[in-house]
Amino acid sequence: MKRVVLALGGNALGDNLHEQMIAVKTAAEAIVDLIEDGFEVIITHGNGPQVGMINLAMETAAKVDESLFYIPMSVCVAMSQGYIGYDIQNALREELLNRGINKPVATIITQTLVDAEDKAFKDPTKPIGAFYSRLEADEMAKRGYDMREDAGRGWRRVVASPKPIGIVESDTVRALLDAGHVPVAVGGGGIPVKKTDGRHLKGTSAVVDKDFASAKLAEELDADMLVILTAVEKVAINFGKPNETWLSEMSVEQAQKYIKEGHFAPGSMLPKVEAALSFTQSAPNRKALITMLETARDGLAGKTGTIIT
Amino acid sequence: MKRVVLALGGNALGDNLHEQMIAVKTAAEAIVDLIEDGFEVIITHGNGPQVGMINLAMETAAKVDESLFYIPMSVCVAMSQGYIGYDIQNALREELLNRGINKPVATIITQTLVDAEDKAFKDPTKPIGAFYSRLEADEMAKRGYDMREDAGRGWRRVVASPKPIGIVESDTVRALLDAGHVPVAVGGGGIPVKKTDGRHLKGTSAVVDKDFASAKLAEELDADMLVILTAVEKVAINFGKPNETWLSEMSVEQAQKYIKEGHFAPGSMLPKVEAALSFTQSAPNRKALITMLETARDGLAGKTGTIIT
Repeated sequence: MKRVVLALGGNALGDNLHEQMIAVKTAAEAIVDLIEDGFEVIITHGNGPQVGMINLAMETAAKVDESLFYIPMSVCVAMSQGYIGYDIQNALREELLNRGINKPVATIITQTLVDAEDKAFKDPTKPIGAFYSRLEADEMAKRGYDMREDAGRGWRRVVASPKPIGIVESDTVRALLDAGHVPVAVGGGGIPVKKTDGRHLKGTSAVVDKDFASAKLAEELDADMLVILTAVEKVAINFGKPNETWLSEMSVEQAQKYIKEGHFAPGSMLPKVEAALSFTQSAPNRKALITMLETARDGLAGKTGTIIT
Repeated sequence: MKRVVLALGGNALGDNLHEQMIAVKTAAEAIVDLIEDGFEVIITHGNGPQVGMINLAMETAAKVDESLFYIPMSVCVAMSQGYIGYDIQNALREELLNRGINKPVATIITQTLVDAEDKAFKDPTKPIGAFYSRLEADEMAKRGYDMREDAGRGWRRVVASPKPIGIVESDTVRALLDAGHVPVAVGGGGIPVKKTDGRHLKGTSAVVDKDFASAKLAEELDADMLVILTAVEKVAINFGKPNETWLSEMSVEQAQKYIKEGHFAPGSMLPKVEAALSFTQSAPNRKALITMLETARDGLAGKTGTIIT
C-alpha cells in the first residue's frame, strides 16, 4: 500500500467558518476516493484565514484587556489546528461511513521543530493579523513586534517563516497509520517550537510553511509520495506568457533550473516546488505531485498533475 | 498493566496562559510519577477559563465584525483542546525525557456524542463568556441565545450541559495506548456533537462536563480506574460542619445514599461523585478515585483519596 501525504491548500478550507464547512465536504469526497483506491493517506492543511481570524480576535480583545488576551502566535496556531482538524475529521468520518468504510479519523495536535538560529528570524516577512495605522504600528514596535508596511494598505505585524527541521509528533502519526487510521497532522505547518536547551521546546512567534512541514512529515514517515494541492492542475513555466507550458513531469535538475530562471512566483508556486524538491531529494524513489484537489485521483493514477521525480 | 483515565481539574491548568504554563509542569511531574509506577495513563482535562477566554475574545471581536467572528461554542471547545493539549503534551514530553522515558505524547481532538433529546437542552444552566447589561441580554435573546441573570453580576449566556453518550474518537485513543503512547483526550469534556440523521454529526451549543466525559471514555477504553483530580484529598460528608467526615472508601450504595442526603454540592463535588459512580457501575471491577493531583500517586497505591467501588 502506497503511503501518501496529502497537503490541502487554502481552497480546500475556505475563508471563513461557513465556507470551511462546505469546502471540507468536497475535500472529504476527494480524499476518500484516494482511500478507496488503496492509498494510505495522511492529511495536512494550511490555516491562513483561520489563524488570521483567531489572531485578529485576540488582538481586538486585547485592546480591552491585554493581560487576558495576549496570546502568542504559537498558541493561535494550536487553536487553529483544533478548529480546522475538528471540521476535517468530522467530514472525513461521515464520507467514509457513507461509503461503508470503517476507518477512524483523528487530528493530532502537532509541533514543528525549527532552528532557533534560522536566518528567517532575522528577517520576518510573513504578515499576520490586522492592519494598523503608522501610530499604532510604532506603538506595537516599541512593545517588541516586527511591523511592516503592507502595499499601501497599512501596517501589519510580520513574523518569521523558518524551515521545519523535525515534526515532534511524527511517531504518533506513524502509530495511527499502522493501526489503519487516517491522521490529520501538522495543521498550518505545525505549532512552531524551538529547542531552548537540550530538550525543552518553546513556542516561537513564527509560521511554518505548510508545504515544507508536510514534506518534512512525509520524509519522517517514509512516505512514497507527497501530494501538494493547489489552485492549478499542473505547474507551468513561462506562466501567463505566450509561451506558457504546462509540465507533466520535472526532474530535480529541471526544477532547480526553472527555479533559477525565475519561473515560479515567490509566496505562491515557488515554495510548493521547493517543498516538493526537499521531499524528492530526501531519499531515492520519493516522488512529489503538484495538482488540484479535483484532479488528485487522476494525478495519483499518472494521468495529470506535475510529478517531481 | 493497569489502565487509568486521569481527569485533571482546573487547578492543574491555572486561569490564564502564564498560570497554565507553570501548572502543567507540576501536573506533568505528578503524571510521570504514575507512568513510572507502571500505570497506562490517559489524560483528560477541563477547559473552563480557557474556553471562556476564547469565547469572550470572539464575542468582543464580533462587536466589530459579526460575520467574521461568530464562532459557535463547539468550535471554541475545539480551539481550547488545541491550546491546552499543546501545553500538556509539551510539558509531559519534557518531563518524560527528563526521566529518560521515551514515550510519545499526543493530543487527540475529541468529539463527544450527546443525545439531541437530552432534557438538558430544554433547561440550559451552564454560564459561559461575558457579562451583559439587561439591554444587551434582551438583544442577544432575540438572536436566539439563552440568557440568564447571574447572581446580581449581570446577564450571561447559558448553554446546556448534556450527558455524554459516546466518545467519537475512542478507537484512536485505544490505538495510541496499544502503541505505548500517552494520549490527551476529551479536553473540556469533548466537542459536543449530536447525530442529526443516521451518521451526520453536528456541533451543538453545549458544554459536556469533563468528569462525565472522562467516565464515558474510561468505560469505552475498558479502563481499570477513573481518577478524578480535584482540590481536596478526599471526599467528605457533612462538609464544613462539626461532624465533617473524610471518606477513604464509598460503595455505590453508600454514595447514592450520601447524594440523596445532599452531602455533595451541585456544580462542585456532586458531578464528580456522579461521574465516578457512572464508571464504577458500568462493569464489574471498575473503580474510581477522587483525590488531589499531589496525592494521586499515594491514592493509586491505596494510601489516600476516596475510592468508589
